[in-house]
This record gives sequence, structure tokens and C-alpha cells, in this order.
Amino acid sequence: MPSDLRFLILVEGQFGPLSSKTANSCIRYTPDRVAAVLDSRFAGTTVQDVLGFGGSIPVVGALADGLARSPTALLIGVAPQGGRLPNDWRATILGAIDAGLDVWSGLHTFLSRDEEFAARAAARGVTLHDLRLPPGDLTVAGGRVRDVDATVILTVGSDCNIGKMTAALQLRDGLAQRGRAVHFAGTGQTGILIEGWGIAVDAVIADFIAGAAERLVVEAAEGAEIVLVEGQGSLIHPGYSGVTLGLLHGSLPHALVLCTQPSRTVITNNPWVKIPPLRDVIAIHDTMTRPLRHAPVIAVCLNTYDLSAQAARDAIARARDETGLPATDPVRFDPEPIVQAIDAFHAQRARNVSPRAAAIR
Amino acid sequence: MPSDLRFLILVEGQFGPLSSKTANSCIRYTPDRVAAVLDSRFAGTTVQDVLGFGGSIPVVGALADGLARSPTALLIGVAPQGGRLPNDWRATILGAIDAGLDVWSGLHTFLSRDEEFAARAAARGVTLHDLRLPPGDLTVAGGRVRDVDATVILTVGSDCNIGKMTAALQLRDGLAQRGRAVHFAGTGQTGILIEGWGIAVDAVIADFIAGAAERLVVEAAEGAEIVLVEGQGSLIHPGYSGVTLGLLHGSLPHALVLCTQPSRTVITNNPWVKIPPLRDVIAIHDTMTRPLRHAPVIAVCLNTYDLSAQAARDAIARARDETGLPATDPVRFDPEPIVQAIDAFHAQRARNVSPRAAAIR
Repeated sequence: MPSDLRFLILVEGQFGPLSSKTANSCIRYTPDRVAAVLDSRFAGTTVQDVLGFGGSIPVVGALADGLARSPTALLIGVAPQGGRLPNDWRATILGAIDAGLDVWSGLHTFLSRDEEFAARAAARGVTLHDLRLPPGDLTVAGGRVRDVDATVILTVGSDCNIGKMTAALQLRDGLAQRGRAVHFAGTGQTGILIEGWGIAVDAVIADFIAGAAERLVVEAAEGAEIVLVEGQGSLIHPGYSGVTLGLLHGSLPHALVLCTQPSRTVITNNPWVKIPPLRDVIAIHDTMTRPLRHAPVIAVCLNTYDLSAQAARDAIARARDETGLPATDPVRFDPEPIVQAIDAFHAQRARNVSPRAAAIR
Repeated sequence: MPSDLRFLILVEGQFGPLSSKTANSCIRYTPDRVAAVLDSRFAGTTVQDVLGFGGSIPVVGALADGLARSPTALLIGVAPQGGRLPNDWRATILGAIDAGLDVWSGLHTFLSRDEEFAARAAARGVTLHDLRLPPGDLTVAGGRVRDVDATVILTVGSDCNIGKMTAALQLRDGLAQRGRAVHFAGTGQTGILIEGWGIAVDAVIADFIAGAAERLVVEAAEGAEIVLVEGQGSLIHPGYSGVTLGLLHGSLPHALVLCTQPSRTVITNNPWVKIPPLRDVIAIHDTMTRPLRHAPVIAVCLNTYDLSAQAARDAIARARDETGLPATDPVRFDPEPIVQAIDAFHAQRARNVSPRAAAIR
């Protein structure tokens, strides 16, 4: 990843706290890489005005205004369900290519395989980066993670788009501050964009989901005491549960951190599926890890962005009571209770279960 | 599918009751389409000699001997883990193409995208059929099967390669004999080969597993009272569980038929995963269907090919006792108990739940 990377983020018509996940995570975790955001609905405002974070990064209304901010690359700032490119964005992307910008994308439709984009990029000498393009040599999983000494923690969720990646990144920072050698394994386009490596497990051939997760964790475990794996989807999501279970069985975590949103009662885009009580969601995960390697849920991350501070604290207390586990909103409040739970789990495992892992320290 | 299709089946070095699933199913269900089988280890014998079924279809030792049997196409008779082409088969395939044969394949590596095969096939004017090549316009699943009136039955398994497709085909025949309008939805290369249509759900992009299953069931339901969906893998298989759950949540079955093998105690290629008792396997499926639409296991199919007749009957009795469900080996013995269970489930559902479905009769 070039160190001088400066993105113009394309989110035309879609910029918002819930609707532009790729853009928002890039802004939250790598703000120094963001030159401007393009959404004509908010032209003239700042990112802070729209998202409530992100500071003075400008929102512009047209490609020319974005180019005036000297970006080096265009980033497609959304990853819509199914991952296809909004049709009316083609002209903007072609304009950016012609202006000499690389293009980064996490869409399922690979820009580098689009004849028009590929031809224009080649003519202008710029590069099309498809974050979801999987390695060509994946294999079927077979439990290779059992040979890994590091403690593997996977974030799981009661729904998709609920904060699994964000939680993992917050927890990584907290564990690093404690001096732990902690690695983040990105499994989606945004995590890969932030970390500079990873595999988008939802974009591989279905037979290789777990194999991709296995390979990712084995690589991430090198030199790590703790690997935090970015979760995907939910075991009860009608569209994405296959990816979720493949990731669970391929990454073979030692423990899980459950991410949920107190205000959400049904699955995104599938109101016919009710989200069960937390204890039932935990039981579902126990059922699905036990036949391979049991991975207890050791903490609960709540996404409370849409609650008042008091309502958030009440929801956290309820989650704690209901599950008997440490719980907090690791973005809004101090992530320490969950960092502490992971750290203690790792320390105990290193002492009792894996003398080799303990010796790394 | 051309009506005059006559296959030479390539299984060099791999023909056997357990090692050549695609070939064996083609021989079992469409013997009239099989001109000869190519495996030099068994040259001069018959299919019956090697498999114990299949009659006088000859096994030949070289391509020239196979061509003497007047095939119209070469069928790749295996689908190895990961699905790639054995390297030493290239020369045989190229020879078959040069001899004017079409080639049918269920491998993950698509023959039609192999430059050498594609060029030679084009030059000779023959067609390369990739059974696993998925449709290009798949979408994320969202519960569309809820609008289907037909009763949807999915075969599930305690492991992969345990008889889910074979069971579904046997049960289809039994239900058809009862006068039911029953359709088979093929989800793997062999089922697709036999039926002439379907989608290989393990070959689609991971995000679209459930979407592929949903589309398949919606199509199969047209004009059907009962749809039998071919299951894949197992919810506890370390490599394939993602495909299995995506298929379960996309096809949204009303009921499940559990396929198992009494002599098998651990997962194929993964001896570190023990197969739990039948009741636990059933409970795992209950846990994973309940949040979307509960699909009870209504019968158990046992694969007893490696047991004596008495041991097989004992195992069936034990399965019946343990689960309280109808159980038999639908290939070895009369499938009637399971056919009856499905028919009764459908009849009750049509009466009580779906007056529209009942009206079809």
C-alpha cells in the first residue's frame, strides 16, 4: 500500500452513518488517507457534519471539486448487498481514471475485469485495485489452525453490518496498548483496505470459504500472541450465514466476541427473521463450534450509536445481566472490559493449554 | 441434454465404489448413457465387477479402446476434494477432443476456460460442458422460498459423500410412483448431470450460496407438489459447512431427511472431528433452521453398503429407536418407510397450512 495514498471517496447519494460502511471505516481508521468525500447531497459540509466523526475532511459535490483536493486514488465507498456497481457511477470512475487516479474497490464486480475500465486504466497508466479479488490457489479447509499457537478470537454477530470489524479494530488497539503482539485478520473489503492485506471470504468460491479463513489465520498467527479475526454476517442471516459458518469453522477460534445492536430486533433486509435473545444467539454459536473445537463467547460488544447515553448504559447492564459476560460499546465507551476479558482468556490459555504459546512472551 | 448422449467415462486410477462418485451415479441412474469406463487397472472387466452394480458396461484400458465403443462424449468421472483436474488426464482429454467427442466435467477448474482445451475444442467443433459453471446473475438470498406452495424437502448429512443425492433420487422415484408431482433440484455436478439442470451451489461466489439455492427451489417448485433438494456437505464438516448452511437457509425446506452411515465415526479427511450421535446431529439442524423456518428431521436414510444384511437391519433398528423416526437404507432395502413419511408430511401440510398447495392436486 503506497504510503502517500490519498483517497477521494465516491459515495454519491449514499453517504451516511449507516449507508457507506467502506467510506466510514476508512475515515475512522485512516483519516490521514482521505482527501475528500464525493456526495453532491452534502457538498460544502464536512465529514464530521454528516457522520458525527471525521473532523474537517471536506464533502464535495463533483469530481472536479474532489480533484482539486489532490487525491492520488478514487475509493468506491460502498459495498451494497450483492456488491455490484451503481450504474450511474461509471462516468465518475472513468473521469477519475482519465484524471490519473488509481481506483480502489471492494465491490463484487471487479473493476479490473470490466473491459471499459481496464482499457481506460491501461491507456492512462493507472491501477485498478479490487480488494475482494481472491487468491487463485485456495484449498478446502482441514483444521490447519489447530497447529497455531496464538490465541484466535473471532468477532461474531447477531446480524450483518452491526460492528464486527469496528469492534475487532478497537479491541486490537486496546490489546496492543497492553503490550500484546496482536494481529488483525481482515476478511472483508474494508478490513483489507485498512490493514493492507487479507482475504474477502465472501468473494471466494463457496467450497473454499473455510479454506480461505484457515489460510488467513495461519498467516496472521506468525509472530502473534493473539489474532483478532474480523467476523462476517451472522449464523442466522438468510443471505450470508454460509459465509459466517465457513469463517467460523475455517478460522477455528478459541473464543468468540459477540457483537449486537440493542435497538435491532429483526435481520437487515429480512424482517421475517427475528433476532433471538442474546442467550439464544450464544447457544447457537456453542452448538456450531462444539463439534469441531468449542469456542465460548467471552464478551459482548454492543453497538449503541442510536441510543441516548443513559439508554446505552442501561442496554449494556441488561446484556451483562442476561449473559453473565463482560459487555460494553467499545466505540462509544472504554473498551477495557472486553480487552481485559480477551487478555485474561489468552493468559489462561497460554498458561494451561499451550506452553509453547506462553513461551513466546 | 442430447437424447443420443453416450459417455466414455474417464476415471483412470480412481474407479471404485467410493472413489468415483460422478461416474458411479451416472452408471446407477443413467446406464443407457454409458458406453464404457476408462481405468487401465480394471481393463477387460465390467462395471458390475468393480462396483457391484451397472451390469455389462465394459471397462477399457486406453482411449482407443473406449472410442471403439462409439461414445459421443467424454465424462470426467470424478470430483476430487477441491475439484481440480488430475494433471495426467490432460492428454486423454485432448485425445478425446481430437477424436470429436464433447467433454462433460464437474470439476472446479472449468475446462471451457482452459486455453488449450478451449482452442482444441473450437478447432475440432466440439463442446466443453462445465456442470459447475454458475449462472452469472445470482443474487443474495432473502427468503423468496416462503412464497412457494410446494413442500420443500432437503436431504442433509452427518458428513459429506454419504448418500444425500442418491437418497433424494430414490425417494423421488418412490414419490412419483405414488402419483406425486415431485421435482428433484440438483445442487452438485452429479445431480445436474443426471437431471440435465441445476446449480452447483459449492461453485458459486460465497455471498450467493443461499441465493443460488433460493433460485433453484423457486424454479423447481413450478408445477411441483414436492421438491426434493439435493443436500451438500454437512453442518459439521470443517471444509464444507458453509455451503451446507447456505443451502439450508436458501432452500428454506419445510422438512429434512437425515442421511448417515452407521460405520462412519469421524468426518471424511478430518479424523479430528467425531460424528456426534444421531440425536445430536438432529438437534444441530433444529438449532440452525429454527431462527428462520423450523424444518424438522422427519426420517433417517442409512448408507449400509459396507455392512452385512443383518448388521444393516440392526443399524436401522437402532436408528429408529434412537430417533423415534422412520429409518431405512433406501438403496439396499425398500425406501417405502421414508417415502411414506414425506408423503404424509406433505399431505398434512397441504391440508392444514397451505390450502393453495392442496388445490394443486
